[in-house]
Amino acid sequence: MKNEINMSDVWKWAKDLFPINRSLTGKGNLETLKYLKDIDNNLSIKYFSSGKKVFDWTVPDEWNVKSAYLIDSKGKKLCDFEVNNLHLVGYSIGIKTAMDLSELDAYLHYDKNNPDAIPYRTSYYERRWGFCISYNDYKKLIPGEYKVYIDATHFSGKMHYGELLIPGDEQSEILLSTYICHPSMANNELSGPLVSIALARHIKSNKALGRYSYRILFLPETIGAISYIHKHQSILESNVIAGYVLTCVGDDREYSYLPSKYGDTLADKAAQSVIRFIDPNYKKYTFLQRGSDERQYCGPNINLPVCSVMRSKYGTFEEYHTSKDNLSFISENGLLGSIKAYTDILFSLNKNNKFKSTVTCEPMMSKRGLRPTMSGEPGVIINPNLINILVYSDGKNDVFDISDILDLNPLDVISGQDTLISYGLLRE
Amino acid sequence: MKNEINMSDVWKWAKDLFPINRSLTGKGNLETLKYLKDIDNNLSIKYFSSGKKVFDWTVPDEWNVKSAYLIDSKGKKLCDFEVNNLHLVGYSIGIKTAMDLSELDAYLHYDKNNPDAIPYRTSYYERRWGFCISYNDYKKLIPGEYKVYIDATHFSGKMHYGELLIPGDEQSEILLSTYICHPSMANNELSGPLVSIALARHIKSNKALGRYSYRILFLPETIGAISYIHKHQSILESNVIAGYVLTCVGDDREYSYLPSKYGDTLADKAAQSVIRFIDPNYKKYTFLQRGSDERQYCGPNINLPVCSVMRSKYGTFEEYHTSKDNLSFISENGLLGSIKAYTDILFSLNKNNKFKSTVTCEPMMSKRGLRPTMSGEPGVIINPNLINILVYSDGKNDVFDISDILDLNPLDVISGQDTLISYGLLRE
Amino acid sequence: MKNEINMSDVWKWAKDLFPINRSLTGKGNLETLKYLKDIDNNLSIKYFSSGKKVFDWTVPDEWNVKSAYLIDSKGKKLCDFEVNNLHLVGYSIGIKTAMDLSELDAYLHYDKNNPDAIPYRTSYYERRWGFCISYNDYKKLIPGEYKVYIDATHFSGKMHYGELLIPGDEQSEILLSTYICHPSMANNELSGPLVSIALARHIKSNKALGRYSYRILFLPETIGAISYIHKHQSILESNVIAGYVLTCVGDDREYSYLPSKYGDTLADKAAQSVIRFIDPNYKKYTFLQRGSDERQYCGPNINLPVCSVMRSKYGTFEEYHTSKDNLSFISENGLLGSIKAYTDILFSLNKNNKFKSTVTCEPMMSKRGLRPTMSGEPGVIINPNLINILVYSDGKNDVFDISDILDLNPLDVISGQDTLISYGLLRE
Repeated sequence: MKNEINMSDVWKWAKDLFPINRSLTGKGNLETLKYLKDIDNNLSIKYFSSGKKVFDWTVPDEWNVKSAYLIDSKGKKLCDFEVNNLHLVGYSIGIKTAMDLSELDAYLHYDKNNPDAIPYRTSYYERRWGFCISYNDYKKLIPGEYKVYIDATHFSGKMHYGELLIPGDEQSEILLSTYICHPSMANNELSGPLVSIALARHIKSNKALGRYSYRILFLPETIGAISYIHKHQSILESNVIAGYVLTCVGDDREYSYLPSKYGDTLADKAAQSVIRFIDPNYKKYTFLQRGSDERQYCGPNINLPVCSVMRSKYGTFEEYHTSKDNLSFISENGLLGSIKAYTDILFSLNKNNKFKSTVTCEPMMSKRGLRPTMSGEPGVIINPNLINILVYSDGKNDVFDISDILDLNPLDVISGQDTLISYGLLRE
Repeated sequence: MKNEINMSDVWKWAKDLFPINRSLTGKGNLETLKYLKDIDNNLSIKYFSSGKKVFDWTVPDEWNVKSAYLIDSKGKKLCDFEVNNLHLVGYSIGIKTAMDLSELDAYLHYDKNNPDAIPYRTSYYERRWGFCISYNDYKKLIPGEYKVYIDATHFSGKMHYGELLIPGDEQSEILLSTYICHPSMANNELSGPLVSIALARHIKSNKALGRYSYRILFLPETIGAISYIHKHQSILESNVIAGYVLTCVGDDREYSYLPSKYGDTLADKAAQSVIRFIDPNYKKYTFLQRGSDERQYCGPNINLPVCSVMRSKYGTFEEYHTSKDNLSFISENGLLGSIKAYTDILFSLNKNNKFKSTVTCEPMMSKRGLRPTMSGEPGVIINPNLINILVYSDGKNDVFDISDILDLNPLDVISGQDTLISYGLLRE
Repeated sequence: MKNEINMSDVWKWAKDLFPINRSLTGKGNLETLKYLKDIDNNLSIKYFSSGKKVFDWTVPDEWNVKSAYLIDSKGKKLCDFEVNNLHLVGYSIGIKTAMDLSELDAYLHYDKNNPDAIPYRTSYYERRWGFCISYNDYKKLIPGEYKVYIDATHFSGKMHYGELLIPGDEQSEILLSTYICHPSMANNELSGPLVSIALARHIKSNKALGRYSYRILFLPETIGAISYIHKHQSILESNVIAGYVLTCVGDDREYSYLPSKYGDTLADKAAQSVIRFIDPNYKKYTFLQRGSDERQYCGPNINLPVCSVMRSKYGTFEEYHTSKDNLSFISENGLLGSIKAYTDILFSLNKNNKFKSTVTCEPMMSKRGLRPTMSGEPGVIINPNLINILVYSDGKNDVFDISDILDLNPLDVISGQDTLISYGLLRE
């Protein structure tokens, strides 16, 4: 596929969106969604109301933070939310108090094994407060009294999300789901929204991707996916033929694949078929190693055809869920690789058919210039793929089956099928 | 499972039963069955009459031995049945005669490769007589005339067997089949009846094993199983959901598993699922290596779900079918290990269901105290098994399927299901 | 099977047939077919007319050659068709002209990598002319003018082929297909017709091969198979239960197997089952490595149960498609091995049934003399195959399935089944 992605745009979006404080709810989420809507006006900003029951869960209150920091006995400001929004435990309650370091200690979170990183902590469903600090800074804290300021509010409000529906020639849909609930971290998770919105633009400008409809979702993780499934379960189950959770798609290391519940869906077939030709050594995880919204799409009592193609999977890199997962951990190249990989997957799905040969026995390829007229001539290139594709086009095999049988890139299978169709040798 | 087995009882039974002469028929068999009935009064002692046609076979005459020995020319008594009942070839005819050693030689059986062991020989269906002797003793025989005394009788009588039916909540049955036709040998085969009668006691005292009915059989090998199948084929085929042949379950070496005809029954699933967590290096045989009553249960024109879990399989240890397979070859520990393994198998079968989740998408585990309320906290134990069990509880997978998918001990699957049921998250 | 093959006959046929010029059509083909008809008078010589449309193809004009050669400026005759018919590019047009070596060069074909061999070249469907010459001879060509003589004619005539139908007890057929379009080459391809006609003789003289009907075809490759399928598709699809393409069956190296389209037909089962016991290290190719008439039988829109057992596969030996593939490359032994292998395959197919046991549980083998009457006697041979065959004779398994389960030569399975039938223990 021709690459029409303008990576300088994508990188600008990354820089603009990175500093915004995101969580399950709140102003930062709305600001993020509005920014995405500026990129693609088709994106609808929707919401679920706090308190709504969704399956086993309840949509949480909205949370907003104005400021949050500590002041030590010498008046030094520490753990300032303005400097890095990871300093504040997500969903912390507002508080204005003072206490001795010995008492404060219970509210401080750090990671001895990753001493120069601020860890990422949240407490969505139990009201508490706390600060996150690098272990190196923690060790420098002086004894004495600390002032604690958290200007944060919880109230019955809205949990916003973005929904981008792109109609195709067919009603059947491809689902792309990513999440907007992570504050200032880059691979996990600004990369998912970046790649998703870039794909949306690419899909719209590309007729070859226009067969299927698309449902692209920007959700708070877990509760957002659960709420969305709660509202749309029936349409998802009837329309989605393949779906992907886009997360950790920004770094430039190996490709990874995490299957659906049983690993046997069209989404899995397409993902593996494409990725193994991009990266023969791609890392294959099991569904037991899942950790993102496939937990819901392939959850109890539901089994949507949803899997995930990633670069470095969440939990496998030391920058994960810390302040080190910043813009220098991801790259234009990493994002571009993911965009290309997903474009190839979407393209393969759009071109996926079970064709049948229009001829019986081998057709005469030489009269079509597809094989030399003289036998045994050295140096003549004969493409056996065309005949092989034709032989296995018996109405039973789709593009990925034929790719598998022939050990041939599905993009080459499609290209061969296009050639055969142009010669009238294949039909649906 | 709580272990309620009193091994000192079991070992006393072993010592009491070991010396009794057993064969296809005869007083020793009846004595053995009466001893087992004293342990469990539910055991019914039944019989087939000599001469009865059973499929391709005929129930043999009854055989009893009063005494049997040789006397050499110096008056020394040799090969005395009183000293070791293995000395007499099983089913030998009665005879009182004298002959020179050179003539006697054709009636003497020994094994040069196992020179200090008396081998075990029988001739059930062709009338002959003979003595078994260790090769070391054979070499010491002095030339000259030997007196031959065998006070044994064959007559049209009864072939006894024991049947222990334990009714359960359901009519479906688990079959345990063992054999009582081996004279004084311990692993093959006193261990099978010992473990079987211990399991019977355990089943009755344990509600968790009470779902299914049990059919526990103490048969003469081969002809007993054939006769029993001949009489009960229809009920076995309709009621038995899983069955096991209990043999060679007394020594303390590796565990072994011998599959059913196609290795694909519930009995096979349960056996392998349980045993691999008890002994990851358990020895897996093929059905072609069979040698006990699975030959009948999975025989021509019949295919019951019967396999076998053993310790050292018959034919694989040098003590096999000799006087060396005595009480010092087995142990309380070996017997206990087998009892426990079979108890786990029976327990797993009783608790085997295809559950369904009551919730859609992941339930909120934190509100049930099953997951921490704060994310990313180090040192907090999160049990992913509960969610994983729930995800695969889609009505298609039984305990052993889930064990397989999760690589999790079936006992832990059951325990997880019990927890989920207690929280209302699973239903049948 | 008793070998009734007279190899001195076969070798005489080889020597007689080798020099004849064969192609898609022409006098040499007719001469070859008449020679084969002399061996087996049942062979029908039939034809397709030039110009006939067959699927995507057209039957070509007939081609005959009287003579063809070059004469250099010193009057030396070169590339003489009389000396070796490979010198002339197959289907060359007639021409009488003269030209300088520099111009002639474009019409000369040689192979630098195989410098002492005349390569084999054809141009069936585009009119051209050319000569084939060894690279060593090519280098010796002297500059100057060459006279070019090709006395060859193309005309609307007939494409002959041979069809040998042997009726059996059943209408179901085994197809043997080989080709008669190669000029003087031995393994590829005189060996196929030689082995095929030898098998025809063998089939007729052997009652054990008489259950199925046979359709033995001697065709021009590709266009012949396509034409034949075009005419007989319906009968082939309804009658052929297994078929083989016989090619490269004359040398004495390893055995090879090339599967059908999906490798899952009865023909594949029988071939692999037999061959692995003849040559455990036989070479297994994939269908993607095909190159003979299985390309048509398993072509687009058609899927006959046809595969191929060969010795050294076409394209894998350096003599392939050159003058070096002559009678010294093949041997009586090589041909005999192939005849035997195919005879075993045919025999196995003829004896292939899904039997059922007539008894339930193991039969009493000792009363039939098939097992000793005394247990444990060392040195007594017990054949477990009989019981094993009986156990798996449950109406679901054919000879090849049982061979697979027991890891037993299918010929031994058949022999065991014959024994069991003779004892009344098996029925269809």
